[in-house]
Parts: sequence; structure tokens; C-alpha cells
Amino acid sequence: MTDEPKLTAASLEEILEAKDAGKLDEFLGALSPADRARAISHLGRNQHEALMTMLSPEDAAGLLEELADEQARDLLESVQPVAAGVIADEIHSDIRADILGGMDLKSTDEILRHMDPDEAEDVRELIAYKPDTAGGLMITEYLAYTDDKTVGEIIQDMQDHGEEYADYDVQYAYITDTGGRLKGVLRMRDLLFTAKGRPAAEVMIANAVHVRDNQPLEQLTQFFGEHRFFGVPALDSSGRLVGVLRRSAVEEASAERANSIFLRVSGIIGGEELRNMPLAKRFSRRLSFLSLNIVLNVVAASVIAMNMDVLDQVIALAVFMPIISDMSGCSGNQAVAVSIRELALGLAKPRDFLRVFRKELAVGLINGFALALLLGFVAFLWKGNPWLGVVAGTALGLNTVIAVCFGGLVPLMLKGLKLDPALVSGPMLTTVTDMCGFFLVLTFAGFALDKLV
Amino acid sequence: MTDEPKLTAASLEEILEAKDAGKLDEFLGALSPADRARAISHLGRNQHEALMTMLSPEDAAGLLEELADEQARDLLESVQPVAAGVIADEIHSDIRADILGGMDLKSTDEILRHMDPDEAEDVRELIAYKPDTAGGLMITEYLAYTDDKTVGEIIQDMQDHGEEYADYDVQYAYITDTGGRLKGVLRMRDLLFTAKGRPAAEVMIANAVHVRDNQPLEQLTQFFGEHRFFGVPALDSSGRLVGVLRRSAVEEASAERANSIFLRVSGIIGGEELRNMPLAKRFSRRLSFLSLNIVLNVVAASVIAMNMDVLDQVIALAVFMPIISDMSGCSGNQAVAVSIRELALGLAKPRDFLRVFRKELAVGLINGFALALLLGFVAFLWKGNPWLGVVAGTALGLNTVIAVCFGGLVPLMLKGLKLDPALVSGPMLTTVTDMCGFFLVLTFAGFALDKLV
Repeated sequence: MTDEPKLTAASLEEILEAKDAGKLDEFLGALSPADRARAISHLGRNQHEALMTMLSPEDAAGLLEELADEQARDLLESVQPVAAGVIADEIHSDIRADILGGMDLKSTDEILRHMDPDEAEDVRELIAYKPDTAGGLMITEYLAYTDDKTVGEIIQDMQDHGEEYADYDVQYAYITDTGGRLKGVLRMRDLLFTAKGRPAAEVMIANAVHVRDNQPLEQLTQFFGEHRFFGVPALDSSGRLVGVLRRSAVEEASAERANSIFLRVSGIIGGEELRNMPLAKRFSRRLSFLSLNIVLNVVAASVIAMNMDVLDQVIALAVFMPIISDMSGCSGNQAVAVSIRELALGLAKPRDFLRVFRKELAVGLINGFALALLLGFVAFLWKGNPWLGVVAGTALGLNTVIAVCFGGLVPLMLKGLKLDPALVSGPMLTTVTDMCGFFLVLTFAGFALDKLV
Repeated sequence: MTDEPKLTAASLEEILEAKDAGKLDEFLGALSPADRARAISHLGRNQHEALMTMLSPEDAAGLLEELADEQARDLLESVQPVAAGVIADEIHSDIRADILGGMDLKSTDEILRHMDPDEAEDVRELIAYKPDTAGGLMITEYLAYTDDKTVGEIIQDMQDHGEEYADYDVQYAYITDTGGRLKGVLRMRDLLFTAKGRPAAEVMIANAVHVRDNQPLEQLTQFFGEHRFFGVPALDSSGRLVGVLRRSAVEEASAERANSIFLRVSGIIGGEELRNMPLAKRFSRRLSFLSLNIVLNVVAASVIAMNMDVLDQVIALAVFMPIISDMSGCSGNQAVAVSIRELALGLAKPRDFLRVFRKELAVGLINGFALALLLGFVAFLWKGNPWLGVVAGTALGLNTVIAVCFGGLVPLMLKGLKLDPALVSGPMLTTVTDMCGFFLVLTFAGFALDKLV
């Protein structure tokens, strides 16, 4: 693992400009996958094509398999469709479908036209599935035999095609009828202990556990939580074997989903941004989230604008309004995060409204009380006026209770409405808590006006 | 997959109160793992012991394997150490180490004392590793044979212990010398094609790829990015085989890390909170983050307090300060998220300071300009004073540039200082952007005071 590769990103550009294929192989081979990805992400977009075409199609495919989908897509789109087709033929089926499936339709079609027809058909079938379903995650490289084969014939086939099958997950072989419908599963090690003349149908585990190709990620995560298998056959609606879903693919998709949630919560629409993406894509996706937010912020601030008379008399309140706004956002976001986490784990569902409310109310009351004391004390110290402390502290305390309860509930509501809790919870939360917070502090100040002026 | 189980959480409590073990098995068996986890999370803590002791030790162990570590820990700690030891004996080695390793030392010791001595020793070895290293993630159930064994002897052993090995990942068997040092790897399918009298040492793949037990998760992710293996042997410093690291364990750890980053960014210290945790733990961890934040908020607000004379004359500015504070936080957090993501992917390192700065500066300038126009226009419309628009818009625009650049860089700096970028970036960002934002708007207003009053 080279933490500090001696060959720098600058020299990758030089190698590409010098069109030195041998040196390129040597350079990339000396780096870890992460350092390769990093060196490539530092390239200008005009150098992507040079990189892809200087590598052999096999090496280019191997490189694309390592990279994040977005990065691989950029590289593959940089080359002519003819060359892209040749490279795509060499990419592993599940990763290939992810890369091609995420392009615009026109690019995908052009590349498919230049691929091997069988491989192209394979891609078409896979990208027809939604990404986070068994069909979208499964691989199509697996061993399948019809149920009239004997153990000896199967072993012979494996010996004959050893090279070709080297990449496959050969923990199991799958037994189907002549129509391709799954009949059973054969464990490799069972082949070891069986007379070669016996038909596979007698040795296989019949009624094998399987998943449907359209099952979503949450169900697949549950499935592998329940079973310690490394892979499971995926069937279409008519029971035909269409692929093999590996445990690691499901775990990987869960990791990607968690990363995407994190980025969406932080206001990255689409759930992914890498800094080698085009500037227009980067600023426009961020700006669309910010534009929504500034409108909501102006709406919230209108509560202040409508109470300018109080503020005009107790100008000190202007110091506390940003504090109340920010702290309520913080408290509320903690509750939002826990709800999003519990939704993803299946520990909370939209109908658990009351339970979440009770649990958050308890935290909100305690933390609200603590924060109210803290801020109240600071406010009192600043102006020596205990009433300023009472007004600021009470407003923050009450607003913390509101923020924590609302923060816990808003992801459940959004999920119930089939909206994205990760992206929408934050803006909804801060708008409501800002409005409530400004209203509370200005209203309380209005009641105590003679004590504050 | 029962989305709406007919048996509700309420009836689980009833079954536990009625001490009806048969009904309990039936109830739990009818639920999906997620629904089981959810039903259990709704139980009061006083019912945990009843649940654990009514199940057979095997079933209790199977249940704990399914649950999130925190939840499993709570359940196992609820029973007497004698019973907990018996249950722990039945849990799979990697999950068991995660559960016991996360308890306080006293609880772990008590349970270990009541476990089978061999199993307890196994746990002690595993929990000595840091959680996100090969040692912390590997399993200790694998097939290993000394290099003097023949293929026939190995096949015989597998036949004799079929039952016991049923749970193992039998893709490979590992060949060691008599001192336990790894000599090679034997693929199961190679056993199929080999004469039984040949020594394993002749058939095995010598110099097998392996990982060191202390390698951290980032390197393991890179390893499996580079190799398509399903598992890899893990060696200690003297080359002794100590466990097998499965691809799925690494993917799972990545998913957990991504979830933990998401929760820490949202201010959940420790990176995990589930609502069935004790109230004291929930509010105190949240409150310690909030307490830090309120101190930083007061510091930031002091910039307003020091410029009260300007504010006193242009009270309308009080409406814009929370907007500028919130919007700059939003813009900055987008950049923070992208940097944390790129750090995790290895696409950015602390020394990429200049590149990140350039990339963020471009986004900051464009989005700052757009937001400045928007807010400036709103401010002008509200009071009909173009200068108010200029002051509010320019302050927001400039502060957006600062927030976006600083947000992109702060995770790199924290990583360089070995601090947690996920937990600390947000508070650092908002403090700096609040201070700058308040300073800018009040200073610009000071310059244009005669136009604003």
C-alpha cells in the first residue's frame, strides 16, 4: 500500500501526452486502486480518451471496474462508441450494467450497438431492472446445468472450462429444467462425495431458497440477515433462473445507500458529487438545493419582519435570534438523523408516530431545559437583566422541545408521503423551527417589554 | 416478507408475561428479521431478560446475530452472566467479538468467565484487535490442514465433520506448517480433480495472497477492490494464520462506517443512537454536542454584540442575519460533505489542499453570485431601498465564497490533524461562517450608513 506514491499525478499527464503505453501500464500498476482513482480524478477531461485508448481493452475494463460508477461513466463516455463497446465487452456483468445503466439513453445505445450481441443482450436485460433490486444487483456469470446431467458430466464440464469459469463464484452450481426454471442447488463440495454416475437431480438440494428479481434492497438485506449464504439464485416471475445475487453485492449497495443518504442530508441532490465532475453539474445541483433553502429562509425571516416593533425596542434580541435558529436546527437534526437511521434499519415505520414522539419528547424536555439554563445565564450576564435571560432561555428551551419532536417525526411523515426524508427533512425542519423560534422570542419579549427596555 | 405482521408488538409483551415459550417461538418465527428487531426495540428493558431466557440458547444466539450490535449488547447484558455465557458460546465468532468487545470491561469479563474456555479464548483474541481492522472483522471458523496431509485425508476429514463444517465458508481450505504459518491455499474445486494420494502441499496455491491482521478498513476495501476473492487469509506478524477475512465483512463494515459518518455529521456523538437505548445515554450524548455548539454560537453572536451601534440604526439588518447565517451554513455543509466523501474514497488527501480550494472557489463564486442577487432583490423589494439590497446581497455572496472554500478545506485539515472530520467540521464551519457573515453585513452597513437610515 503506497501512501506516498513517488509517481505523481503530474507525471500521469506527461505519460499520456508522450503516448507511452508501456510507461502507462507501469505507472498504473505501481499504484493502489485508491491512488489510481485519485490520479485519474486529477486529469483534465480531454485526457480521458487518451487514457482509455492507450490501455488494452482488458486493462481499461479492469480499471473501470475499480472506480466509482460516476467516474467510470465519464471515462467510458470519453471514447468513441466502437472502442467503448470493445472495452464494455470485458467488464464484469453487474458493474457493467451499473455503468451503462446510469448514462443517458443515447450513449448507452451507441455503446451497446458496438458490443458483442450476446453481451449487449445481457446488459439490456440487467439495466431493465431498478438499480437497488435483486435484478439490478445480481451477476449473470454462474454455473447452471439442466437436471438430466450426471455428476460426472458436470465435473467434466468444469474441468473443460476451468479457464472460463475461473472468475465465477463456484460455491454452488444451479440445476434447472430445460425451460431454465430453477429445480435445485448443488454445492460444490457435494460433488466431492458423490458417485459420478448419479444424476444431478438426485444430489441437489431441491426447493432451494431463492429471491425474486424485483425484490428491493431492504428485503435483500433482511434475507442475508436471516441466512448465512454467500449467494442466492434470483428468479423471474415464471421461476426462471436469471442471475445470482451475492451477499457482498447487497452489502455494497447498503454502503452506497448510506453514503448517498449522508450526501443528500448535506444538500447534495442526486446523492453523489466528486470534484472531477463538470463544474456546471456541481454548482447547479448544489444551487437548486440552496435556492429552495433561501426561499424558505426568507419565509421564516418574515416572522421577524412582522414583529419589528418589539425588536426596535429591545435591539439586544437580535443577538439571540441567530443562536436560537442555529441551536434548534442542531437539536432537530440529531432527531432527524436517528429517525432516518431507524427507518433504514426497519426499526421505525411511519405508523410508529406516537412512540417516536414520546421518545423524542423526553430528550427534548431534558436538553431544552439544559440549553435554556445555559443561554438564559449568558443573556443575564451580558446585560445584567434577568428578564432578558428568562425571555431568551425560555424561547430556546421551548423551541428545542418543538425542534426535537418535529425533527423525529418529519422523516416518518415524508416516508409515509413517499418523499425523500434525507433530502427534504432538513429544509422543512429549519423552516418550522426558525419560524417558531423567532415567534417565541419576540412574543415573550412583547409580554415582558416593560422589564426589558 | 410480512410488511404488516398481524401479531403486534403488544402481543410480544403479553407472550413474555404469560411465559409461553412455544408461543414465543411461533411469534418470532412468523416475523421477518427487521420486524423482529422492531418488535424487540419496543419492549421495555425489564422484559429483555424474560425474552432471552425463554428462548433456547441456540435461538437466543441466532436472534442476537441478526440484531444491530448495540441492540444485541443490551439484550445480552440483561441476563445473568451464567446464562449469557451459554448463549455467547453459540454466537458466530465475528459477531460475538463485536457484541462482547463493545461492552464495558466488567460485563465482558463476567460473561467470558462463564463461557466454554476455548470459545472464551477465541473472543479474547478477537477483541484485542481494533474493530475496523482485518483482525476485528475476520472469522475464526475456517478449514486449516498441515502441509503433510494428503488430498485424500483432507476429503476424509471434511466427510467426517460435514455437520460441524456446514456453517463454514468452504470455498477454500488453508494449508499451514506445523507452527501454524500459512503455506498455501487449496481451492475446494481443485480437490475434485486431484488424485487422493497427492500431498496437499503439491496441489495448493503457494505464496497465497493474504492480509495482515492489523490492516485498517481503507486498505481492506482497496484490497477487495483489486481482487475478486470472496475471502482472504489473515496473518499475524509472524505469518501465522489467525483468521479468514470475508469480502462481505469488509463491505458490511463500510456500510456501518458510512452510517456512522452520517450520524456524526448530524451531531450524534459515538455514531449510533437507537431509540430503545436508555434515555440517559441518548440525551447526554446529544447534549454534549449541543453544549459545544451553544458556546461556539455565543462566540459567533458576540460579533453582533460588538456592533450594536450599527444594528441600532439599521434594525432591518436583524432580519438578514439569521438568513446569512443559515444559508452560509448550507453552502458550506455541501462542500464539507463532498470532502468527507472524497476522503473516504481516497480521492482527496490532506495534501490536496490547493486542488480542493480551486474546485470549491469556482462553485463558491457562481453560487455566491446567484444567492447575492436573490437576497439583494428580496431586500430591495421589502424596504424599497436599493442600498439595503446591496449590503445584504454582497455580504451573503462574499460569505458564501468563504463558506464553500472553508467547508471544502476544513475536513482535510481535521483529517491531517487526526481529528474526526465528520463530527467536528460542522461546528467549526458554522462558527467561522457566522462570525464572518455577521461581520460583513454589519461592516458594509456601517460604510453605507447614511444611505440606509
